[in-house]
Amino acid sequence: MTERLPNLHINSDRLWGDIHATAKFGGTPKGGVRRLTLSDEDQKVRDWFRTACEAAGCEVHVDALGSMFAIRPGRDKTKLPVGMGSHLDTQPTGGKFDGVLGTLAALEVIRTLNDAGIETDAPICVVNWTNEEGSRFAPAMMASGAYAGDFTVDDILSRKDADGVTVAAALENIGYRGGEPVGARRLGAFVELHIEQGPILERESKTIGVVERGQGILWYDGRISGVERHASTPMQYRQDALAALAEIVLAAERIANSRAPNAVATVGEAVIAAPSRNVVPGEIAFTMDVRSPDGAIMTALDAELRAAVADIGSKRRVDIAFDSVWRKEPTIFDTKVVSAVEQATTALGYSHRRITSGAGHDACNLNAVMPTAMIFVPCKDGLSHNELEDATQDHCAAGANVLLHATLALAGVTSAR
Amino acid sequence: MTERLPNLHINSDRLWGDIHATAKFGGTPKGGVRRLTLSDEDQKVRDWFRTACEAAGCEVHVDALGSMFAIRPGRDKTKLPVGMGSHLDTQPTGGKFDGVLGTLAALEVIRTLNDAGIETDAPICVVNWTNEEGSRFAPAMMASGAYAGDFTVDDILSRKDADGVTVAAALENIGYRGGEPVGARRLGAFVELHIEQGPILERESKTIGVVERGQGILWYDGRISGVERHASTPMQYRQDALAALAEIVLAAERIANSRAPNAVATVGEAVIAAPSRNVVPGEIAFTMDVRSPDGAIMTALDAELRAAVADIGSKRRVDIAFDSVWRKEPTIFDTKVVSAVEQATTALGYSHRRITSGAGHDACNLNAVMPTAMIFVPCKDGLSHNELEDATQDHCAAGANVLLHATLALAGVTSAR
Repeated sequence: MTERLPNLHINSDRLWGDIHATAKFGGTPKGGVRRLTLSDEDQKVRDWFRTACEAAGCEVHVDALGSMFAIRPGRDKTKLPVGMGSHLDTQPTGGKFDGVLGTLAALEVIRTLNDAGIETDAPICVVNWTNEEGSRFAPAMMASGAYAGDFTVDDILSRKDADGVTVAAALENIGYRGGEPVGARRLGAFVELHIEQGPILERESKTIGVVERGQGILWYDGRISGVERHASTPMQYRQDALAALAEIVLAAERIANSRAPNAVATVGEAVIAAPSRNVVPGEIAFTMDVRSPDGAIMTALDAELRAAVADIGSKRRVDIAFDSVWRKEPTIFDTKVVSAVEQATTALGYSHRRITSGAGHDACNLNAVMPTAMIFVPCKDGLSHNELEDATQDHCAAGANVLLHATLALAGVTSAR
Repeated sequence: MTERLPNLHINSDRLWGDIHATAKFGGTPKGGVRRLTLSDEDQKVRDWFRTACEAAGCEVHVDALGSMFAIRPGRDKTKLPVGMGSHLDTQPTGGKFDGVLGTLAALEVIRTLNDAGIETDAPICVVNWTNEEGSRFAPAMMASGAYAGDFTVDDILSRKDADGVTVAAALENIGYRGGEPVGARRLGAFVELHIEQGPILERESKTIGVVERGQGILWYDGRISGVERHASTPMQYRQDALAALAEIVLAAERIANSRAPNAVATVGEAVIAAPSRNVVPGEIAFTMDVRSPDGAIMTALDAELRAAVADIGSKRRVDIAFDSVWRKEPTIFDTKVVSAVEQATTALGYSHRRITSGAGHDACNLNAVMPTAMIFVPCKDGLSHNELEDATQDHCAAGANVLLHATLALAGVTSAR
C-alpha cells in the first residue's frame, strides 16, 4: 500500500454494480453469460466499456486485433504506462466474473483515483484484450499472444470460426478493427486481477492469491477413424471410434493423475460424425487440453499421451490422428511485480498465499514482453467456465484494492488531494 | 422352386439398374445414400416407386402412416395377398442396398411374373414400409410396428424429429398421408429380402441366409450431469461427464462381450452440451442399443447395465439418467415361411445356412400378425449403415430368385404361359 494513501479503497458497490450491469450483455437464463468474442454481445459490452472509460477521462485506443487501451495520463511523460486489465469475452456458457472482474476493477481503480484527485507519475492504462477464451477462434489469449509476438497479426486475422468467418471479418462486423499496430502501445508493467478458477483459496480460506507462476499448456486436435457399422455387428468385428475415445479419455485421466498435483488433462470436445443410435460410431473428432507448471513434465506428458493413443489405435484397429496445435511454456511472473502485489496485500491486511495459475491468462503472454504479475480472488466451489461461476462482493473488492495499491506502487504517486 | 417353373429367374440387370437408378435420390459424393424418412428425397423415391408399380400393372394404396401397398391381382379372390417388400428410407449416411434391395426385388418379381405371363392364385402385394430406420423419428420400424398393433396411429403421428416436426406434418408435407387405416390391408404371409448387415455369410462363403430368428432389441436414452469446470481444475475436484461416459461405453462393451455371441451393445450417439476445449464437460446426452436373440439374456443384460451405470455415477459423483425407451422381444419366424424360403434356395442350388438377424426389420414386427420370414444375402465386409455398404449383382439376383420362388410357393401358381 502506498505510504501516503493508507486508507484509499475502491468503491465496492460501484464495482459490484458494473459487474452486474455488464452481465446483461449475453446474459443467460441460468444467470451466466454467453458473450463469444467479436459477437454482437461483445460489441455491446465494448461500447459500454468505451463510454465508461471516456467518462472517466481516458482516451481509448483500439489496435488492429480489437484490443482496447484506455489511457489515464500521468505526470511524467517519459514513463511507459502501467497496464491493468483482462478480457470481456466469455465461454459459450460462461459466468459473470471470468475476465470481467479484472477489466472492470481496473476501470474502478481509475475512477477511485479520479475521486481522490490522485495523479500518478507514470500513466495508467486499462486494457480489454480480444479473445482470451478461444471458444470461437483458436488460439485462446489470441490478441495478447500477438501483442507479445507469438503470432503474426495476419495469421490471427485469417483464423476462422466454425462458420468460416475470419477474425478480420468479425472485427469489421462489430466495428472494432482498430488502427493501432498490434504491440505498438508499449506498457511498463502489467497487473491482471482474476478469479482463481480453482478451489485452493476457498478451501484454505485465503482472500488473495499472489500469483507467481502460470501453468504451461498443451493443446491437441484428435481424429479417430474406425468403421461405421450396423449396431447388430458382432463385438469382435467392430472398429468402434467411440470405444477408442473412451480409452483415450481414461488414459489421459490416468496419466494426469500419475503426475498429480503437477498435471491435469481434459477432453473438452468430442463430436461423432453422423451419429445414429443404431450405428457403431465410425469417426470422432476430439480435443485435449493438458497443463503443468513444469516444462519437463509437459514434455513427459506429451510422450506418454502419444504412446497411449498409439497403443489404443493399434489394439482397436482404428486410425488416430493426434496433433499438437499449441504449446505454451509455464510462466514465471516478474519478481518485482509479484512483490508489489504481495506488499499491497500485506499492507491491506488480507489473508493470502502464493499460488500457481492453473488457467492460461493474457498476463502469461504479456510476461514475455513486460514485467507482469496477477492477483487471484476465490471463486465459489472453484467453479469457472460455468454459468454458476460466482464470487463474493468482498473478495472482488479486496482484489480491486490490491490492484489499486500495486498499481500505485508501480506507477508512483506524487500528489494526493 | 415351383415344380412347373424350374427355369424362371428374375432379370438381374433390370434389378441392378433399378438399385442404381433410385440411389440418385439422396445420393452422396461417397457413393452412399442420405434419404431420411419423409424427406424430399424420400418423396422422390416414393414417386418413382409408385410409377414403376403402376407401370407393372399394380394398384398402389397408401395407408395413414405412408406405407405403400402395390397389389398384383390373383386368380382366387378369396385369398389374402402374399406380401413382399422392405423399405426405401436410409440412414443419414446409409448405403444403396439396406431396404432398397428387398423393395425393388419385390417389384422385380412382379415384372418377372408379368414377362412370363404367370398368374398366381393369391394376389401378391409389394410393400414399402415407412420409417424403418428410425434415424429421423423414433421408433425404428415405425409403420410396421403400428401395422402390427405395437403402437397406436395417433401416438406415431405425434412423434417429432429433432426440429420438432411431427410425423403427421412430415407425411402431409410430402403428400403421403394416405387414406387407408393402418393394419386394414391384411396379408396372408410376408417375405422380406435384405442384405445381411453382418459378416457371417461372406466369411462362410454362403449365398443365401435362411433367417429363422431376429434379435431382441433394447434402446436406452441416457443423460450424464456432472459439473462444467475450467480445464485447470485439479483432477480430484472434477465431476467429468465425459469420463463417466467413457466408463459406460467400456462397461457396455465388457458386458456384451461376456455374453458373446449372444449380445451386442452400442453407444451410437453422445453429445456434449456446450463443448469447449478448455472446459471439463458437464453434461452429456447419449443413446445405447443392446441386442440379443434370447429374451432371458436381454433381461440379464438390462440389469447388469443398470448396475454398472449406477456404480459409475456414484463413483464419479455425477447424476446419470438411464431410461429404457424401447424393448423389442426376439423374433421366431414362421416355420412354414422359413421352409418355403429354404426349399426355394435348395431347388435353385444356392449355398446357404440358417441364420439369426442381428438387425431389427419390419419382418420382425409383421411376424406377430402374419406368417413371416426373411432371406439374407451377403454384403461386403459385413458393412451396413455406411456409405460404403456394398453387395454383388449376383448375390442380389440370387436373393431375388429365392424371393420369387418362395412367393410363388406361398401364393400358388395355376397357370404359366
